[in-house]
Amino acid sequence: MTRSASGPTVGVVGGGQLGRMLGEAAAPLGVELVVADPTPDCPAAPVVCDQLVGGFEDESTIRELAERTDVLTFEIELADPDALERVAEGTGTPVHPAPETLRTIQDKLVQKRRLAEAGVPVPEFRGVDTADELREACVELGYPAMLKARTGGYDGRGNVPVAGPEEVEAAMADIAGPAMVEEMVDFERELAVMGCLGDGERDTFPVTETIHREEILRESVAPARAGETVRERARDIALDVLDVMDGRGVFGIELFETSDDGILLNEIAPRPHNSGHWTIEGCHTSQFEQHIRAVVGEPLGTTGIRDPTVSANILGDIAERRDAVMDGEEDVLATERAHLHWYGKREVYELRKMGHITMTGDDPDNRDTLLSDVRELRDGLTFRG
Amino acid sequence: MTRSASGPTVGVVGGGQLGRMLGEAAAPLGVELVVADPTPDCPAAPVVCDQLVGGFEDESTIRELAERTDVLTFEIELADPDALERVAEGTGTPVHPAPETLRTIQDKLVQKRRLAEAGVPVPEFRGVDTADELREACVELGYPAMLKARTGGYDGRGNVPVAGPEEVEAAMADIAGPAMVEEMVDFERELAVMGCLGDGERDTFPVTETIHREEILRESVAPARAGETVRERARDIALDVLDVMDGRGVFGIELFETSDDGILLNEIAPRPHNSGHWTIEGCHTSQFEQHIRAVVGEPLGTTGIRDPTVSANILGDIAERRDAVMDGEEDVLATERAHLHWYGKREVYELRKMGHITMTGDDPDNRDTLLSDVRELRDGLTFRG
Repeated sequence: MTRSASGPTVGVVGGGQLGRMLGEAAAPLGVELVVADPTPDCPAAPVVCDQLVGGFEDESTIRELAERTDVLTFEIELADPDALERVAEGTGTPVHPAPETLRTIQDKLVQKRRLAEAGVPVPEFRGVDTADELREACVELGYPAMLKARTGGYDGRGNVPVAGPEEVEAAMADIAGPAMVEEMVDFERELAVMGCLGDGERDTFPVTETIHREEILRESVAPARAGETVRERARDIALDVLDVMDGRGVFGIELFETSDDGILLNEIAPRPHNSGHWTIEGCHTSQFEQHIRAVVGEPLGTTGIRDPTVSANILGDIAERRDAVMDGEEDVLATERAHLHWYGKREVYELRKMGHITMTGDDPDNRDTLLSDVRELRDGLTFRG
Repeated sequence: MTRSASGPTVGVVGGGQLGRMLGEAAAPLGVELVVADPTPDCPAAPVVCDQLVGGFEDESTIRELAERTDVLTFEIELADPDALERVAEGTGTPVHPAPETLRTIQDKLVQKRRLAEAGVPVPEFRGVDTADELREACVELGYPAMLKARTGGYDGRGNVPVAGPEEVEAAMADIAGPAMVEEMVDFERELAVMGCLGDGERDTFPVTETIHREEILRESVAPARAGETVRERARDIALDVLDVMDGRGVFGIELFETSDDGILLNEIAPRPHNSGHWTIEGCHTSQFEQHIRAVVGEPLGTTGIRDPTVSANILGDIAERRDAVMDGEEDVLATERAHLHWYGKREVYELRKMGHITMTGDDPDNRDTLLSDVRELRDGLTFRG
């Protein structure tokens, strides 16, 4: 690679907050981004060279994106692997990570099977297409169990807990499609590792502790407040997961830490992930810069942590969909070592991810305080209803 | 202030590398930038919302910029303070820093007089409009002396050393306009302090050591390898300088450290400055983020240093103007804790600032090594002739 005025250029399918933060990371490197997103003026639009307005599965848009750029990537799992494959073949523009890997990950049952075959520890699971199959599976897995739509779920959508046999019919009706069921993991902690495949190299970021409520990520703590053995095990398993992936890029690898210091794989995202947002301030290289370096085939950056770091999501707190106007950000800006990230979304609704706050600390023993500080800042933000 | 999808918005006169780095810093804050620059596809264009193509002194362009944004600022001293004042009055859009301060700084003689009056220590100087006046002044100041054009100079352009009486005529002819002459300071070190005026608050970044060759900044080292007393004195003088400035924003304050641990003011820039580029990775808040926070009137960020940090400018190394194609950046990207910043300029010529490299260290006693490391990386980059 070289640097010239105009390149390298990356086409990104999806222009939400991940696309926006990819754009922020690409600019210093001299890498130019074009995004494709169906929403005009998507969050990424103001910080990238151009936006093509078109659906994630719209092949003509993806083809135009490929013709204008040196390499394609995606920031959303709704991208269509078949369309990406055809476009790559037709235009010669490579896609990273590989569409085949996206296809594997999109179907949670296929994903789990593939990982289990590779020796990655996963919760017990079964594919279930009917209430009878679900009931049968739960006899083996026990109640409660977690029923998941095989495709299309995110942020907890498409996941239905099944407490007992009396809930089987309703749960299956709720999913209304091909599903899988998993044993409910009684975890000690949820962890995440951002892994990265580069051109002939691979690396992981420090293990993150993730705190969910209603299955939506609320806060991240890095390094995770887990023992060293657990963190090493998490990293080893993340490397095993990377071995199953094809192509280049960053992967969000979500894990459960069990009460006996074990690790079970929860889910994978073939892209930068909410649990790695803290790396922007917390690491020498952010997950977004790392993804850009990887997809253009340049050397990966240093993934070491600079300071203990926490982040908290800013979520929509009003029931109805409205124009987004947030108050209270002055307290965030006035707080030492606090960083505001605003995604520029026009509308807010209940639990929509609108931005995040990151705080860096100076004492690894003080992550509890750092976490309560960032929560307090986040809780001070309100949207006008 | 609040955060909504579209604001606050800042109009920037100038869209060079400083505008580009302002855009990179504004995006996470949710602040949108529009720049005005005469060069289509200027360096800032790919990372900001929009560019108006128009001259720095073109009042209709500046008026359009003001009408589209909440506040105006400038990243180049060639901005026209009269036009800015008229536009501010006509549109109600404030300008930061104040046009009056820009006017003072644009004229080096007026700048020095104003600072000397305020008690800021400056080298001995005289205003000179003719060869006779220059000869007379040099009798008092001694040879060698430094003749400077009162307006329009940058990166050493407009500065002419005068070794003895025989060079007076030629030096004056070279400047060809209103000038000032200064005693030649026999400095120990050159220093710079980035200062910032916010809304009712002010702050300074850690003192930087700046290394020039041919009067162009080559490398910066932070914290400066000067004694603590000197660094404190530099900071105090920077605060005195800020007292003379009007409006909000970041100021680059260039200083001489004399052999007796004294400080003399060299020059001021009413904007983010090359000597503060290291703050992007080196400080909790960068000079660019700080400038954005200041001009929109939000709280200033934490200016503390995170790690010892050096940066080196990537300058054009070929005699003729050509399309910019640089080789060797892979070594920079593959080096631990090294960061590439590429400005996206289409053309390269001798000594043009094309980008910079920043490296952070982990040991304050090791700044010499860090400096030689960053120089080696920079020297490995070449432009195709």
